[in-house]
Amino acid sequence: MTDFQEVIEKIARSLDSVEDRGTVASYIPELAQVDKNKFGIYVTDAANHGYGVGDADQGFSIQSISKALSVAQAFAILGDKLWQRVDVEPSGDPFNHLSLLEQENGIPRNPFINAGAIVVADVLFSHLDNPKKDFLSYVRNIANDESIDYDEKVAISEVKTGFKNIAAANLIKSFGNIENDVDDVLDFYFHQCSLKMSCRQLTHAFYFFMNGGKCQQGRKYLTSSQAKRINAIMLTCGFYDEAGEFAFEVGLPGKSGVGGGIVALLPNKFCAATWSPGLNAKGNSKLGMKALEQLTTLTGLSIF
Amino acid sequence: MTDFQEVIEKIARSLDSVEDRGTVASYIPELAQVDKNKFGIYVTDAANHGYGVGDADQGFSIQSISKALSVAQAFAILGDKLWQRVDVEPSGDPFNHLSLLEQENGIPRNPFINAGAIVVADVLFSHLDNPKKDFLSYVRNIANDESIDYDEKVAISEVKTGFKNIAAANLIKSFGNIENDVDDVLDFYFHQCSLKMSCRQLTHAFYFFMNGGKCQQGRKYLTSSQAKRINAIMLTCGFYDEAGEFAFEVGLPGKSGVGGGIVALLPNKFCAATWSPGLNAKGNSKLGMKALEQLTTLTGLSIF
Amino acid sequence: MTDFQEVIEKIARSLDSVEDRGTVASYIPELAQVDKNKFGIYVTDAANHGYGVGDADQGFSIQSISKALSVAQAFAILGDKLWQRVDVEPSGDPFNHLSLLEQENGIPRNPFINAGAIVVADVLFSHLDNPKKDFLSYVRNIANDESIDYDEKVAISEVKTGFKNIAAANLIKSFGNIENDVDDVLDFYFHQCSLKMSCRQLTHAFYFFMNGGKCQQGRKYLTSSQAKRINAIMLTCGFYDEAGEFAFEVGLPGKSGVGGGIVALLPNKFCAATWSPGLNAKGNSKLGMKALEQLTTLTGLSIF
Amino acid sequence: MTDFQEVIEKIARSLDSVEDRGTVASYIPELAQVDKNKFGIYVTDAANHGYGVGDADQGFSIQSISKALSVAQAFAILGDKLWQRVDVEPSGDPFNHLSLLEQENGIPRNPFINAGAIVVADVLFSHLDNPKKDFLSYVRNIANDESIDYDEKVAISEVKTGFKNIAAANLIKSFGNIENDVDDVLDFYFHQCSLKMSCRQLTHAFYFFMNGGKCQQGRKYLTSSQAKRINAIMLTCGFYDEAGEFAFEVGLPGKSGVGGGIVALLPNKFCAATWSPGLNAKGNSKLGMKALEQLTTLTGLSIF
Repeated sequence: MTDFQEVIEKIARSLDSVEDRGTVASYIPELAQVDKNKFGIYVTDAANHGYGVGDADQGFSIQSISKALSVAQAFAILGDKLWQRVDVEPSGDPFNHLSLLEQENGIPRNPFINAGAIVVADVLFSHLDNPKKDFLSYVRNIANDESIDYDEKVAISEVKTGFKNIAAANLIKSFGNIENDVDDVLDFYFHQCSLKMSCRQLTHAFYFFMNGGKCQQGRKYLTSSQAKRINAIMLTCGFYDEAGEFAFEVGLPGKSGVGGGIVALLPNKFCAATWSPGLNAKGNSKLGMKALEQLTTLTGLSIF
Repeated sequence: MTDFQEVIEKIARSLDSVEDRGTVASYIPELAQVDKNKFGIYVTDAANHGYGVGDADQGFSIQSISKALSVAQAFAILGDKLWQRVDVEPSGDPFNHLSLLEQENGIPRNPFINAGAIVVADVLFSHLDNPKKDFLSYVRNIANDESIDYDEKVAISEVKTGFKNIAAANLIKSFGNIENDVDDVLDFYFHQCSLKMSCRQLTHAFYFFMNGGKCQQGRKYLTSSQAKRINAIMLTCGFYDEAGEFAFEVGLPGKSGVGGGIVALLPNKFCAATWSPGLNAKGNSKLGMKALEQLTTLTGLSIF
Repeated sequence: MTDFQEVIEKIARSLDSVEDRGTVASYIPELAQVDKNKFGIYVTDAANHGYGVGDADQGFSIQSISKALSVAQAFAILGDKLWQRVDVEPSGDPFNHLSLLEQENGIPRNPFINAGAIVVADVLFSHLDNPKKDFLSYVRNIANDESIDYDEKVAISEVKTGFKNIAAANLIKSFGNIENDVDDVLDFYFHQCSLKMSCRQLTHAFYFFMNGGKCQQGRKYLTSSQAKRINAIMLTCGFYDEAGEFAFEVGLPGKSGVGGGIVALLPNKFCAATWSPGLNAKGNSKLGMKALEQLTTLTGLSIF
Repeated sequence: MTDFQEVIEKIARSLDSVEDRGTVASYIPELAQVDKNKFGIYVTDAANHGYGVGDADQGFSIQSISKALSVAQAFAILGDKLWQRVDVEPSGDPFNHLSLLEQENGIPRNPFINAGAIVVADVLFSHLDNPKKDFLSYVRNIANDESIDYDEKVAISEVKTGFKNIAAANLIKSFGNIENDVDDVLDFYFHQCSLKMSCRQLTHAFYFFMNGGKCQQGRKYLTSSQAKRINAIMLTCGFYDEAGEFAFEVGLPGKSGVGGGIVALLPNKFCAATWSPGLNAKGNSKLGMKALEQLTTLTGLSIF
C-alpha cells in the first residue's frame, strides 16, 4: 500500500533546493505579490485519509482550477445539451487565443480555455437564481467547508485588466453564444476564478471527480458517467497547450491555474493538489508539474 | 475631354435594370431599413466641376468610408509616427477577423480594417480637445459643408450591437495599443462611422486626396506626399479582402462602406462617389463596384 | 468478472441493424473497394484469453494504426531524444493540415498526425539496416505472427495519390527535420501503413502497450514508463481532431486508421480491436467508435 | 521634362556609401556567391530612350520577376479563365506560406506567390508545345533580345533544394489544381525563375506593361485592359508581404526577385529596373527599394 505521507515528504525535500521556480503571474496585480517560495502538497485518498506537507493549508487564488467545478455544476444542470454550447476537443493553442473562436463560429473548443469557461459561466448565469451566491454554495457543499470564499480584491483586479477576456466574451456574444449581458457574465466569471482555497480544500472539492460523482459525505453531484467525462476533458484539455505534455509526463486528469495551483486525480485511488506560484512558459506551475510527475513515478499510480 | 455627365448617365441606365442588387447590411438595425433601389453617382473633376445622376444628393451612412478621413486627420497630427501604431499592409482576411491581431501583437494590419480604424480613433481621441466635435469640424471644413452631421440613431445602434468591435478594441488594449478608455474610443469611433453624407458631399470631402492634399477651397490638409500615401493605402486595403479585385477591375484608389457607398479617385483628374445599398458577399456595394468599373472602362481613366 | 464474449456479442447484435455506416475511404483506390458491411471485434484480456465476433479474423489495411507501432520502435531506439524531432501535443486540427508545421518550424505536433509519423519513419529509416524488412519483423515478433505482411497494392496505390503526404514530407525537409531522401522515407511510410492485419492480430500486437511493455510471450519491447507514455499520446492524439471526443465517450487510449480499424486498451486489463470500414466525417470508423463506447459502458471499464 | 540620367546618377551616388546592404539570398547555392556590392539602375522611357548607371548591363538571376512574364503569357492564352485557377488578392502572408492554400482549396491567392506562379507554370505547360523553349522565345521576343537565356546551374540548384516549392506543388495537386506531372511543372518553373537578365533587358521586357500591351517594336502581346490588370496585381501583390509598404513608399506597380532585382513602371511614362543583391527581412532588395523610392520622390512621378 502506498504511504502517501512518505512520498510527498520525499518530493518536497527533492524540490526544496530547486532554484528556478518559474515566474509568478503578473497580469493580475493581486497575484503578482505572492511569495514565490510557497510550496504545498496535499493528498486525499479514496478512504478519506489526508496527507499534507508544506503550505498545504494556506489559501491561494485557484483561478482556472475553478473551471472544473463550474463545468461540473453546468453539466449537472444542463446534461448533454451543454456540449452544444462548448466542445470537448483540445485547442492546440495557447489559452488566450481567439483565432479558433472565429473559425468555429463562437463555439469554444473546450470548457477549460477561457472562452469555454466564459460560456459555461453564461450557462450558470442563466440557470442559477443568484449566480455568485449559488456557485459559492455549490463549492462549499462539495468541499464540505463553509470557510471557502471569493477574494473580492482579486475579482476586482481582473475586471480592471481582463481585456482579453472581455474581448473573448464579446466575440462569442457576436456569434450569439452568450445569452446574458457580457459585463454580468464576466463579473460572475471573475468571481469564480477568484476563489481562495488551500491544497487540502481543493482535494476535498475534487474528491467527487475521483469517486464516481459522490463527495466525501456521500452526496451525489454527478452521475458516474458524467464524472468520467469531466475527467476525460481534464486529461485532454486541463493544461492549456501543455495538456499532451502533462498526460505524457504525469498521466493523470487534472487542472491547473495561474495562481500556481494544480489538482490531479486517479479515479478510485486519490486526489492530489500542489501549490507553487512560479509558472513555466505555458502558464502551469513549474514545481507543481514536477511534484506530480514524481508522485506518479514514485507510486507507480497513473491511469496509463 | 471626358464628358462625365454623359458617361455617368450611361452607367446609370445600364444598371437600372439589374435585378440582383446584393443584400442590404442588416447587422446595424438602422441600416437595414434603407431602400435597396436607391442609386446615385457623383463626379467632381479637378477643375471643380460636378456631375450627378440619381440619388446623388441623398445622405446615407458613410460607415467605413470615414476611415479615410480619420486616418488623414491622424496622419496630419502625428506624421510618420502614426505607422508605429498601425501598419500599411493588406490583411488578406475578411474585415472583422481578429486572428492577425493576436499574431502581430496588437498592431493592426492597416488603418482600414476595423481594428486599425479603432487605433486611429484612439490616436485622435488622445490629440483632439473634443474628439467628436473636432472630427466633425474637420470633415465639414474639408468638404466646405456645415450641414454634414453624425446620425445619432445609427451611432447608438452600433454601440448596442458592435460586439466584434468591442472584442477587437479590448484585444488591442490587452496589447497596450489603445491609450484611452475602450468605451470612450468606441463611442467616438461609432460616431465617426455614423456620418451621414451624400455622393456629392463625399466627392467634395475626398477632393484633397486627389489634389495633393489641398481641398477645393485651396486649404492644405496634407502634404502632397501624405496624400499620395493614403491613396496607396486605399488602393491596397480599401476594400477589405476584395482590394485586389477592385484594383484589378477598377484600378483606382478608393474606400467603401457597408452603407453602400464607395468613393474612388484618380489623382489630378477626378473624384467619384457611388451609392447603392445592396452589398456583395465581401461587404462592398454590388452596383457601386460595377458602376466604377464602367467608369474607368468608358473613360479609359485609371492609374494603371 | 467481465464476460467479454457475452459483451461483444451483445454489441455486435445492437450494431447489426445500423443503416448509416459512414463512408468508406475513397482517396486510396484499393481501400475504396472494401465491403462496407464487414464488422468485427476482438478482445484479448490480460490473462491472454481471446474473444471474437464477426469478421475478427479477416485482414484489413491498418493504415494509421501502424503509427503506434512505428513510434514504439523509434522510442525504443532513440529514447527521449525522439521528442526533439516530434512533439506530444494534440494538434487541434484535421489530420492532414500543414499549417501548424509552418508555424512550428517543421516539428510536427505529435507522432500520430501524418507529418509526425513521417518524421518517425525518417528516424527508423536512419536507424534500421533494412527499414521495410526490419519494421515488418518487429511487428511480426511483437504479435508473434509470421503471417503478417505488407499489402504491396495498397502501398503502391498511396505512392501514386499521396500528394498531401509528399507535400508534408517536403515541407518538413525544408525545415531540416527529415534526414533521408524524401522519396525513400515516403516509400517506407506507405509500406508501413499498408500492413494488413485482423482484429485478432491487432490485439496481439498492441498487447505490450497494455502490459507495461511486455508482449504476450513475455519479451520486453518498451520500459513500463515508455509504454505508459505512448498510451498517453494515444489518448490525447490517437483520433485526429476527434481525440477529445473519443476520450470523452470511450475513455481509453487507442488508435484508429482510415481502413476502418480501431485498437483501444485498458492498461493491465484488456486490449480490443474493432473493424468496420465506414468512416465518420472526422475519418474514424463510425461503428467502431460506437462499439468501443458500448464496451466501456457495458463493462464499466475505462481509465477514468 | 524629367532628366532620368541625372536622377539615377544622383540616386547611385547617394546609395554608394550605404553600409547595410542587406543579406544575399543563401537558400539557392548559386545565388549566394553573387557580389553584394553590385548595383545598377536602368530606365527606359515611353519614347524608347534608355538611361543607365552602375552594373546596369550585367546579367543576374531574375527569379520571381519572371512571374510577371509568365502570367502575361498565360493571360494572353487563357484570357479571364486564368482567374479560375489563381486569385488576384494580396496574401497578407510571407511568400512561402502554404496555410492559405489549405483554407482555400488549392486556389493560390495571386500569381506572384510561389504557389500561384506554379499554377501559372502548369497552365503554360498544358498549352505550350515545348514549354521551356516556347517561354524563352516569348521573353526574347518581348525584349527583342536573342541573348537572354536560362541559367542551367541555377535551375538545377533549385531542383535540389526547393523543398517548399515541391511541397506547395504537391499540396495544390492534392486539390486538383495542377494538371500535369508535378516534377515536370516544377522543372519548367525552376527554369523560368533561372532566367538571367540585366536591368537594361528587364526594362525592355517590361516595356509592354507600361505601354498598353505593346512592346518597343510595336507588337501587341496583351490587350490594353490585360496590361492594366497585370499592373494592378503587381501593385497589390508584387512584393510579397511588403506590397503595401512598396505602394506606400514608392507608389508604382512592380515586381521583385530574390536575386536582388526589381522592375517598376509608371504607365505611359517609364519602366525602371534596379539590381542590388542584398535583401531586407522580407526578401526584397534593400537598396533597390530605396533607389525606387528616391526615383519617385525626385521626379514626382508615381501613380498616386
